Parts: sequence; C-alpha cells; structure tokens
Amino acid sequence: MSDLNRASASADKTPRTERGRKTLRRLLEAAAEEFGERGYHEAAITGITGRAGVALGSFYTYFESKEEVFRALVRDMSRATRAHVAEAVKDAPDRIAAERIGLTAFIAFVRQHRELYRIIEEAQFVADDVYREHYRTFVEGYRRNLAAAAARGEIVAGDDEPRAWALIGMSVFLGMRYGIWEEDLSPAEVADAAISLVAEGLRKRG
Amino acid sequence: MSDLNRASASADKTPRTERGRKTLRRLLEAAAEEFGERGYHEAAITGITGRAGVALGSFYTYFESKEEVFRALVRDMSRATRAHVAEAVKDAPDRIAAERIGLTAFIAFVRQHRELYRIIEEAQFVADDVYREHYRTFVEGYRRNLAAAAARGEIVAGDDEPRAWALIGMSVFLGMRYGIWEEDLSPAEVADAAISLVAEGLRKRG
Repeated sequence: MSDLNRASASADKTPRTERGRKTLRRLLEAAAEEFGERGYHEAAITGITGRAGVALGSFYTYFESKEEVFRALVRDMSRATRAHVAEAVKDAPDRIAAERIGLTAFIAFVRQHRELYRIIEEAQFVADDVYREHYRTFVEGYRRNLAAAAARGEIVAGDDEPRAWALIGMSVFLGMRYGIWEEDLSPAEVADAAISLVAEGLRKRG
Repeated sequence: MSDLNRASASADKTPRTERGRKTLRRLLEAAAEEFGERGYHEAAITGITGRAGVALGSFYTYFESKEEVFRALVRDMSRATRAHVAEAVKDAPDRIAAERIGLTAFIAFVRQHRELYRIIEEAQFVADDVYREHYRTFVEGYRRNLAAAAARGEIVAGDDEPRAWALIGMSVFLGMRYGIWEEDLSPAEVADAAISLVAEGLRKRG
C-alpha cells in the first residue's frame, strides 16, 4: 500500500479495513479499464465508478480527482509489473538465466495486461514525474542486480546504469512489438533471441 | 519528398517550386516547435503559421488539417533521424563500429532536437499508424544491416527481427535518459557502455 499512500493527497485515505481495501482495488482495476480503453482525456470518474460498481461518493474517499486516481494507477501498475517479474525470476540460478526468465515473464504479462502500455505511455503527457519514477525505479533495481551479479562473477563488470537503461529499453520495445502489436513469436522465443544477443554478444569469436 | 507525398491527401500538394519547398520546410519546422512545446491538443494551425511567418491560406496549400501536418511532421522527423544516423555511420569499418558511432550520433541528435521524443511519443495517441510505421521502418533497416553483417561474418548470426527491436529499444531509452532527461554522461560514454554490452555480451569467459 505504500505506493498508494504516496499517491494520495492525505495518508488518512489509505483504507484501514479489508472491505475498504477491496473497494480501492476494484476502483484501480476499473480505472485501468477506463483509462486503457478511453485514454486519459476521454476517461471519466463516473466511468470508473460505474465499471467498479462503487458509488461516486466512495470514489472521493480514496481519490480527489481524475489525475490523482491516474497517478495511483500508474504506480500500482508499475509495482505489479515489477512484482510479477521478480516472482518469476526468484529461483533463477544466475543473472543470465534470470534475464531470460524475466523477459519471458514480462512479455507474457504484457499480453495479459494490454492496457499497461497505453497507460504508462500516456503518463508522460499527464504526470511526467510518475512516468519517470516508473522507469527510474525499474532501472534502480536492475542496476543493483547487475552490480551484484558482477560482484559474484556471473557477468562481466561494466557501467551498470547505462547497461540497465539499455536492457530495460530492449524489454519495453520487445514487449510492445511481441506483446501488443503482434504475437508471431512466443515470449520464450523472443527472450531467447534477445538474451542470446545480450549474454553472448554480437562479436564473432575464434 | 516521398514521405510528404504520402502524408498529403492529394499528391498535387507537393510543392513544385524552390520557393514552395522552402515554405513547406518552414511550416514543418514551425510545426515541430508548436507541437513540441504545446502538445498536439493545445497546438493550433495559427500557432504554426505565426511561427513560420506564413499566411494561413498558404498552410492549406500544403495541409488540410492539424492532423495532416502532424502526420507529415512525424514522417519528416523519422526520415531526418534515420538520415542523420546513416550519414554518421557511412564510413564505419564494420557493424560493431557502426553500432557505436550510430548510437553516439543518435544521442547527440536527440540533444539538439529535444522536441523529437515528445512528438514521436504523442503520435501513438494521435496517429498510431504513423508511430508504428516510424519504428517498423527503423527496424527494417536495422534488420537488413544485421543480416548483411552476419553474412559478411562480422557478427554472429541470430534472429534478426527481435535483435533489431532489442537494439532500437535500447537506443530509444538511452536517448531518452541521456539525451533528454539528464546529460551526466557524454553520448560517446553512453554508447561505449551500451555497445560493449551488445558486442561482447554479459557472459564472463574463462
């Protein structure tokens, strides 16, 4: 709930009861549908409450405005994406295996959450700070993983911040092309091709 | 001019005189400023003609609507970006050198054309077909370059379409982070880190 805390204007909007948490979750899921289908400018708070089956007054228990629910949604989707990938890779034997498993899981996640890209991408025009926070948070975790793997001797050492941005850009574009636009390769096939490039390198040896 | 031809509703809007070509160029440069600063929805045709110092009637000699000039602008920026990178890499001795020089040139280009990202990114909400065409055209060139380099034995063979999407995603994110958000590394430093990753690979060798 810490993400939602930060997104709320006042911390006392965080639900204290199980029922409140369920209502908040329903509102966020409805917001993902409403913003994903209609875009930020066409989306309406009444569209969100209608989809959620929640009274309009209840909406204002949790959010003060359309912008506030949008910001909370971007943070919630960002957290859910990172959690999904982290869960998928938690038993990976090493960093390169984790890259392959993580990219496969990410593309599969995108296929099941097709509204993800539209909402995150629109954030750069509606709430650029939340858009940047999304990628900076992703990169920070990635950078730490690369540094730890280099320290363990699993990968070559390098400049981890640009390496992390490079790897995340790669994943985002592969997710767009093979997750949303067309599904002509499976997530595992895409990850095999991309992680082979990243793990072994383009240079021909020997 | 072929891009502009396609963007126009009727081919006979393509200027036939040098003066007409200059007016069209001024309109596109003014459109880049207007859309880049104000975004698509706030931008106005009168804002474009005012910046260009061109009469409103002349605008309609070239474009029928705000959407039409926006579409022509995205295609024009896409073509200019590809031309800039192609020119930079034309004397590169091999594919890996071309990757490094091309990425350096791309990040430098982004720093000098800061409106590029906002306009291209907004295209996905305004004219998604032109947004997709932009990346598909980039990928198609990249894919051919990778295939030719593999055939010459300069790089290892692989699945060139996902490899091309991976490399372009990498470049786009590095351009965003180090071209627009912050300039704490030089374009060459960013390219060295990223192309080292791509050329040599992450895997540690004996």
